[in-house]
Amino acid sequence: MTRRFDGAASAGRPVRVGLDVGGSKTEALALDAEGRVVARHRCGSVRGPAGVVETVRDAVAVLCGPSSALRAESVGIGIPGQVEAPSGRVRHAVNLELRDLDLGRILEQELGAPVTIENDVKVAAVGACRLRGRAAESLAYLNLGTGVAAGVVVDGVLQRGVGGVAGEIGHLSVDPRGAACPCGQRGCIETVAGGGAVARRWGGIGDLPVLEMFDAADRGDERALRLRGELAGGVAAAVRLLVLTLDVPAVLLGGGLANLGDRLRAVVVDELRGAAEASDFLGSLRVDERLEMLPPGSGAPALGAAHVGAEVGTVRTAPV
Amino acid sequence: MTRRFDGAASAGRPVRVGLDVGGSKTEALALDAEGRVVARHRCGSVRGPAGVVETVRDAVAVLCGPSSALRAESVGIGIPGQVEAPSGRVRHAVNLELRDLDLGRILEQELGAPVTIENDVKVAAVGACRLRGRAAESLAYLNLGTGVAAGVVVDGVLQRGVGGVAGEIGHLSVDPRGAACPCGQRGCIETVAGGGAVARRWGGIGDLPVLEMFDAADRGDERALRLRGELAGGVAAAVRLLVLTLDVPAVLLGGGLANLGDRLRAVVVDELRGAAEASDFLGSLRVDERLEMLPPGSGAPALGAAHVGAEVGTVRTAPV
Repeated sequence: MTRRFDGAASAGRPVRVGLDVGGSKTEALALDAEGRVVARHRCGSVRGPAGVVETVRDAVAVLCGPSSALRAESVGIGIPGQVEAPSGRVRHAVNLELRDLDLGRILEQELGAPVTIENDVKVAAVGACRLRGRAAESLAYLNLGTGVAAGVVVDGVLQRGVGGVAGEIGHLSVDPRGAACPCGQRGCIETVAGGGAVARRWGGIGDLPVLEMFDAADRGDERALRLRGELAGGVAAAVRLLVLTLDVPAVLLGGGLANLGDRLRAVVVDELRGAAEASDFLGSLRVDERLEMLPPGSGAPALGAAHVGAEVGTVRTAPV
Repeated sequence: MTRRFDGAASAGRPVRVGLDVGGSKTEALALDAEGRVVARHRCGSVRGPAGVVETVRDAVAVLCGPSSALRAESVGIGIPGQVEAPSGRVRHAVNLELRDLDLGRILEQELGAPVTIENDVKVAAVGACRLRGRAAESLAYLNLGTGVAAGVVVDGVLQRGVGGVAGEIGHLSVDPRGAACPCGQRGCIETVAGGGAVARRWGGIGDLPVLEMFDAADRGDERALRLRGELAGGVAAAVRLLVLTLDVPAVLLGGGLANLGDRLRAVVVDELRGAAEASDFLGSLRVDERLEMLPPGSGAPALGAAHVGAEVGTVRTAPV
């Protein structure tokens, strides 16, 4: 009963498709051979194993279906969860209700094209590199969403590490007396800089508790000022950590909290400058000047997913 | 009046020379085309600009002088200080009494061979890779000397970063209420895990204050037990930081404190296991199993320096 759709076999101009499959919505785009975006599509995500497969299949069909002038040469997908490379097995994608699914293999059969799955923060880092127009570049992308994690690109190469764990800096402790983290540690960066933890601590009733907290801090609310200061301190710690460990020339802030834009940037820069004033060593590194905001709605994850998918597709089909 | 020695022009079998120029002694070795060590030399280091140049020139002359059957094709040098790449300018090499010296250029003129200078911890990381017999490998080398710093190799490539600062994790704070660090921050990893800081805090009178402190801890001395625990905590924090940021399969401990061998390893492993028991997330990463000790006297820095020198030499002389 499964509708099958063979994106690769259909006629048309070859494109590299990228998808950012989030917990509530999915962004898809198609790149031509020169890396230009030639088609975009946005839809809701359906959760659960069958739902995620359907979401991807339908989005690819919109871009590269029989009535389209495009043909999917490769498909890259960013997923909020742990991804086993190169198999594309997905684990603990809680927001998509996927516990453990051989998603890469299933989607390759569905789509008839090479499929590469990667963690969403990691593909966003690749997309951020491409958006800046310098592919062979080094940068760190710091995602401030419900949780905190980073994606690192060195000389144009995404850093995965031996088990795909590279960039999980949200669970590094920076305060032994800090708040208990659901991960079992204390004082993790995520306990002060993760949107989920901040929302729990602030206890707002609206949809945007972090925005509420920033507004209250602007009005002089003491508890909000303290929480905002701790958030800025946590983000600054993460930025310093990425600079001292990898000496990346740029750290881009993205994710839901980055929608605060300059309001977030200002408090983090203040924190970085304060630390630099107290330390000649930090001052010499000019950490604050490396901080950049990824513009909201940049489409970096889907763009990065398309590039990650294309790279692996190339490797797989390269002559030996 | 300067003795000149042209190592490259002399007859003989081509070798890649590597030197580890430390504050008190210098280790030198020569590698043949297959990467085998064919000669070694050890001597005292002379400090200051003229002294360091003399030390390197004399060590290379012993290995590749007119009476030798070897000819220096490239020279790589590890230096305890900041090194500007690719010029080889050295700054803040305090232990060698070099404030700011164009050492690479001076030595190329002296030696008549391509010279590459790199930070000593970074070349040690490259050497550690080679010693394990897997060149195209990822690992972190954590140097516990007077200070704390790391060298990271990813897929066989040494990570320098944009300004050569990559790996300076000793100055990441893991405790906002921790001890003041000479760098101007509080609670830096180096304040609890650096040999210099531990020696100051323990206040021993002998040459080996950290060893004294470990002995006292074994006898049950409470202050020593606390300092040893804090040292183990700082090293464990550095190891976790390298694993969560880069997901390296191995973290090798080296430097003066690593001469404590299993006595150091045991307390760090205890600390890592304790943290892993409290956190399923950390437990799943098996951080303790990634910890290894670099054997004392391994010669990793000189070996790594020879390889770093050879790589850059190859690039410089490669046909375009």
